[in-house]
Formats: sequence, structure tokens, C-alpha cells
Amino acid sequence: MEAAATVFDERGYEAAKLTDILQLAQVTKGALYFHFHSKEDLAHAVIDAQVSAVPVPMPQVSKLQEFVDIGMVFAHRLTTDRVLRGSVRLTLDQGGNELSRSGPYREWTELNLRVLNEAKERGELLPHADTEEVAPLVVGAYAGLNLMSQALNNPADMDRWASSLYRHLLPSIAVPAVLAMLDMEQGRGARALAAAEAATTTA
Amino acid sequence: MEAAATVFDERGYEAAKLTDILQLAQVTKGALYFHFHSKEDLAHAVIDAQVSAVPVPMPQVSKLQEFVDIGMVFAHRLTTDRVLRGSVRLTLDQGGNELSRSGPYREWTELNLRVLNEAKERGELLPHADTEEVAPLVVGAYAGLNLMSQALNNPADMDRWASSLYRHLLPSIAVPAVLAMLDMEQGRGARALAAAEAATTTA
Repeated sequence: MEAAATVFDERGYEAAKLTDILQLAQVTKGALYFHFHSKEDLAHAVIDAQVSAVPVPMPQVSKLQEFVDIGMVFAHRLTTDRVLRGSVRLTLDQGGNELSRSGPYREWTELNLRVLNEAKERGELLPHADTEEVAPLVVGAYAGLNLMSQALNNPADMDRWASSLYRHLLPSIAVPAVLAMLDMEQGRGARALAAAEAATTTA
Repeated sequence: MEAAATVFDERGYEAAKLTDILQLAQVTKGALYFHFHSKEDLAHAVIDAQVSAVPVPMPQVSKLQEFVDIGMVFAHRLTTDRVLRGSVRLTLDQGGNELSRSGPYREWTELNLRVLNEAKERGELLPHADTEEVAPLVVGAYAGLNLMSQALNNPADMDRWASSLYRHLLPSIAVPAVLAMLDMEQGRGARALAAAEAATTTA
């Protein structure tokens, strides 16, 4: 899986060769076909890894901080998790029509919508904020910033773009008292993960 | 060019076949090779068409309205211009590494930056608004919403997404008096084009 994700991440779906994946994984063709029947099968498994990696938000002082953390933690994990990067590339690649790429968009939208609706119930959102509109807006915008940072050869920039997206979007949906307390700065993903780890250690 | 853009739009770069383009254009291989030496050549020409289609903003009451119109007019033109759609797909496709896809991101960012800087000079932006940050943010987010609407098989949705993006972004950068006067609603692209046409007819 890791070898497949690496090759998909570097080459994209169309250009990825099974022989390269076999070589990188150091397995025989027979061993691979025991688990996966085709390149398409492998690609689906890598894409599914992204969907199953959709996190359970870590509890924060506000639901809007949990909403922001979804994207900030993901941006941080993109720098460390190869399978996630391969999965994102397969999702954003439009080349091979046989892969369904709508799955991750829907999963991420559902997660964002759920947390936004909780924020709304707690009175953290401005009255006119439409969660059904904002959830897919953030998912689509986030995907594009990811794609742009790859096209401009700065994949590590995603932490900066995610921060920028939230800082410019949240003022139009958050009540000022909550807005003022949000951490949307670069490095938030790493900080949130470190805090969660520290909490687990003390618990 | 139109035939090539159509095939690239439907299949993407990797899967597009020169024979399909020849058939759709109803030209011989010899005639095609007189103008273009390869599929890559053709793709570059289609991508360049997008860059040369980067519009000169039509004068509006505020520079921020011109900024909004860049994206709203483009969203409208995507529904009517096949070459533009093919070009966008080639830009967003990550498949063929031999194509440089950073060009359009840079061109659109430069255009947005120029108009935003004019808005800033006229006092239409909040003091903290960073035009160097906002210009690429809008371009990347816009590209992703385009990609998502294609992945979810609703390419016509771009008018709605562009409107949503601007309505959620502008409150964090525009001074309230200008913000209140902006038309960022769906159909703005068609309205702006119709107004420009009417102005040309009377002139």
C-alpha cells in the first residue's frame, strides 16, 4: 500500500506502472495479485485509506476550533504521511475516468458539515451562516489550494494555505467572541496533535 | 483547436488520442502536423488559449467589483466556451508531467493581484488585508471548486461556487461601505457581460 501510494503520488494514476510498485514494495507479482486484482484495485485501496483516515475531531474549547483543526491537522499530516499524499493525488487527478473520485469530497464535506452544525447549535455561528453551503465550499477550496501548491512545486505550503483559508473565511461565519479565540495560525495542526498526545500520556 | 479542447475536456490529457481529435476536427494527420508536432504541442496551445483569455476587467463602480467580476465572468464563460473548459481541465489534470501547469495559476494570480492592489490604493480594503496573500488564495480556492464540481458531475455549478467563495471571503477584506454595494450573486457574470455589451452598442 505504501509503495503504491508513493508511486501514485509521484506519477499520478495513468503514468503509474505496476512494475514500479512491485519493485518498490519488493514483492512478486503473484503476492500482489493475491491481494489486489489490478492497478485500479490498488488505487481504490489507497483512496479508501484517505476516507478511513478522516479523523474524529479532538475536543476543543469551541466547535469552530474543531472545524479549523480538521483542515490544519490534515495539512500537517500531508507532510508526514505518504499514503495520504498518494490518496490525495488520486482524488485530485482527473485522468483515469474509471476511478470514482467523488467519495473523498463527500466524506470530508459530511465531516465538516457535522462539526459546523454542532457549532451552530452552540451559538458559535452568525445567524445567516449556512452550514450546508460552507462545508462543501471549504472542502473544494482546500482541494484547490492543495493542487496549486503541488503545481507550483511547494507541497509543504499547505499549512500556510489552510491557515490563510480559515483566517479569511471564518470572519463571515463566526460570532466575534468565538472568532477572537480561534487558533488558525500556521503550525496549528502540529500543536493540536502535540496537545492531544500530551493529554493521552497524562490520562 | 476546438476539437482538441473538446477531447481534452472529455478525456483528460493522458487518455486523449490524436486520432479522436483528427476525426472530430475532420482534418488529415498531415494537416494537423503542419501546425502542431505532437499531442503535447496541441495541449500547450489549448492551455495558452486560457492564458490569453485572461480578461481585461470591465470598469465598475468599485475595483472590488472588478475583482469579483474576474471570477464571475469566467464561471459564466466556462458554460459556453469549450476551448476554455478543455484548457481548465489540462491545467487541473496532474497526469502528464511533461506539461507545465503552473502558468495559468501565475497569470490568474497576477491579474487578481493587480486589481486588488488598485482596490487597496482607493481605500476599498480593510487596513490589514494582504493582497499578496488574498490573490493566490482566491485562485487556488477557485480551481478546487471547479475541480470538485467536475468530480461531482455538476460542472454548471461553478456560478454558484464562485458566488459562494466571494460572499464568504470579501467580508474579511472589504470596507463595509464597498462590501454593501458589491454584486456577488449567481448570474453576476452574465449580467456584467450583458451590461458591457449594452455599453458598447450605445457608444
